[in-house]
Amino acid sequence: VAAVTERAHAAGLDAADPLAGFRDEFVLCERIYMDGNSLGRLPRRVEERVAALVQEWGERLVTGWHEWIELPARLGDLLAREIVGAQPGEVLVCDSVTVNLYKLAAAALDRRPGVIVTAVDEFPTDRYVLQGLGEVRLLDPDPAADDVAAACAPGDVALVCLSHVNYRSGALADLAGITEAAHDAGALMLWDVCHSAGVVPIDLSGVDLAVGCTYKYLNAGPGAPAFLYMREGLQLELRSPIQGWFGQREQFAMGPAYDPEPGIVRFLAGTPPIVALAAVEPAVELVAEAGVAALREKSVALTAYAIELHDAWLAPLGFELGTPRDAARRGSHVSLRHPEGWRICRALIERADVIPDFRAPDSVRFGLPPLYTRFVDVWDAFDRLRRLVEDEVYLELDPAPGRVT
Amino acid sequence: VAAVTERAHAAGLDAADPLAGFRDEFVLCERIYMDGNSLGRLPRRVEERVAALVQEWGERLVTGWHEWIELPARLGDLLAREIVGAQPGEVLVCDSVTVNLYKLAAAALDRRPGVIVTAVDEFPTDRYVLQGLGEVRLLDPDPAADDVAAACAPGDVALVCLSHVNYRSGALADLAGITEAAHDAGALMLWDVCHSAGVVPIDLSGVDLAVGCTYKYLNAGPGAPAFLYMREGLQLELRSPIQGWFGQREQFAMGPAYDPEPGIVRFLAGTPPIVALAAVEPAVELVAEAGVAALREKSVALTAYAIELHDAWLAPLGFELGTPRDAARRGSHVSLRHPEGWRICRALIERADVIPDFRAPDSVRFGLPPLYTRFVDVWDAFDRLRRLVEDEVYLELDPAPGRVT
Repeated sequence: VAAVTERAHAAGLDAADPLAGFRDEFVLCERIYMDGNSLGRLPRRVEERVAALVQEWGERLVTGWHEWIELPARLGDLLAREIVGAQPGEVLVCDSVTVNLYKLAAAALDRRPGVIVTAVDEFPTDRYVLQGLGEVRLLDPDPAADDVAAACAPGDVALVCLSHVNYRSGALADLAGITEAAHDAGALMLWDVCHSAGVVPIDLSGVDLAVGCTYKYLNAGPGAPAFLYMREGLQLELRSPIQGWFGQREQFAMGPAYDPEPGIVRFLAGTPPIVALAAVEPAVELVAEAGVAALREKSVALTAYAIELHDAWLAPLGFELGTPRDAARRGSHVSLRHPEGWRICRALIERADVIPDFRAPDSVRFGLPPLYTRFVDVWDAFDRLRRLVEDEVYLELDPAPGRVT
Repeated sequence: VAAVTERAHAAGLDAADPLAGFRDEFVLCERIYMDGNSLGRLPRRVEERVAALVQEWGERLVTGWHEWIELPARLGDLLAREIVGAQPGEVLVCDSVTVNLYKLAAAALDRRPGVIVTAVDEFPTDRYVLQGLGEVRLLDPDPAADDVAAACAPGDVALVCLSHVNYRSGALADLAGITEAAHDAGALMLWDVCHSAGVVPIDLSGVDLAVGCTYKYLNAGPGAPAFLYMREGLQLELRSPIQGWFGQREQFAMGPAYDPEPGIVRFLAGTPPIVALAAVEPAVELVAEAGVAALREKSVALTAYAIELHDAWLAPLGFELGTPRDAARRGSHVSLRHPEGWRICRALIERADVIPDFRAPDSVRFGLPPLYTRFVDVWDAFDRLRRLVEDEVYLELDPAPGRVT
């Protein structure tokens, strides 16, 4: 049996991987891609669907809208069933995560004014949007249910908003426990599932509100439309602050007064981008074919393997694991902290053909989407990383931080 | 010389049309398309660009963002120069018209609270969004500068919002005169240029705010990203209500507090849909190659010809022209009003292979985008319309109104 630090060990894990065949569904490239948690790879079937949709536009012209108009709700139902554990009529695919978070949080606060609780290391756009909507109380990173309960103790909290998986550390939150703590305090709970959708089983039953994106582990393309979730029981109570015509009852009657649809559709705003929306369907179907439960199993194995290699090779070189060791407490990316993280990340990209990404102040993130990442990819990436630090190659690069995506 | 009602007359006009060759730039279909004012045709170069962008995603993966991130501002500058008469740094391509209108109107009212003036027949999404933001005072259809001055007379108006070309009647507003009336009353002026962008020369210099779409006369595809304009002098004063990370200064520093960019970029919200955005560039370049001045000239000739045929053939059958006869007061679509408009529109689509659209209560709209519409198309469409009404074919259809896009 090969030792864990031998490439043969990784190759053995790949040979036993029941999901290995899904890699053939993707357009591949020479470089070792470790940033699928930021932007997923291109599925071949998405390339085909986009081309077909463009042709459909050319041929059907405006009459295509008879089907296109159903896409936000139809894709929402697909996500509800396969990805986020919700009911039909509780999810829409539309707008960006930012705009959806704004719509949901503003609607919640309009109904029940009060303080917003979020975490100090919540994803920036979430923090900024919430700052614009009211008073924000900040939790320390990766809060537990008790922390949320304590923050809600004054009784003035209207909304708790957190990420299911933290974008930087990769920590997986206690969704059920935190939701219960928010509810116990009379607050609504809004989850951002951008970094868990498609790799961690999600059960939104009981959750009030959620937003998520389709361009990370769902592979629908750069800036692909996002999604929003609202439990059925809230839909008649809450109103979108953006009173758009796609949320209007009898939209094409174009009546004088805004009269929103009685269901989730009231949270649509303007005309949806059809070419981008069309890409979401085959992308999500591909994830559904593998199944989130199986993907989670492989994801845990991949991140565990990365942590083993970190411990063996990288910890002695000054790295520190930024991601929880408990598999039940992490998502599908691993963050390695290093004081020279910025230069090391650039050196990996520019000198070693490995693409991770960097998140300030010191985290190099390795995304390990189980749908197309092999164990040998992890071995190769970390082997190159180890050599590059041992050989001090990164010292040849500009130490100044700049824009990294 | 052929009489105006003979097809040979139309063919003669086409033979003399300097823009005739642009038709070859588009994917064509058998049916006579008269709804390019709702959704423009597919330019061949857009089909190619979309395919290239998808491939770029597959190959460059997340590193593609180094260029993609500039698209909203770069395409905005293209629109500023070629389409809307604005300066570099005054236009962004992003989100939907609805979301952009919301951002601009909310920002304006936040700075200067007061009454909103719009028109009773303003496009629905505009009216609904404005209703959600404050007290709305409604003008009669197609207001003149004097009407706006009268509505602003009480001195309580903060924002005037109108369409440059009315979506139903096709009437072209007095942009400069109305803007002056709004300014005289101390109000900001917001123009919706959805139905004029690409067919009517626009000069936004002096205008405060504007929104528009790229899927009508700019042919960027169903639900393609919209644009927003804000004059340079306002950009430091106004703040987007949606405090998204794409509007943040030093976006990837991901700092603790929202600190918006000092320019137009502060009005970006979330991650932009790159595949849909990429389609905008070649679509707008194509319009720019023809030139809006030349397009306007042909547009006026097309609508004038449609009105001539209406007078000769359709007025005797009970139609009434819903569009101004004065060419200086109309855009690039012609509305024909008829009590049976709904069924007549359906019959044209289902029985005559002509695609116009219907707008309640009684308008059949014929969009005549000069970039690909021939004079013989107008003749053929109106000839079929005439026969269909003479032969009462439309009476075979269900009279109940339903959803028409």
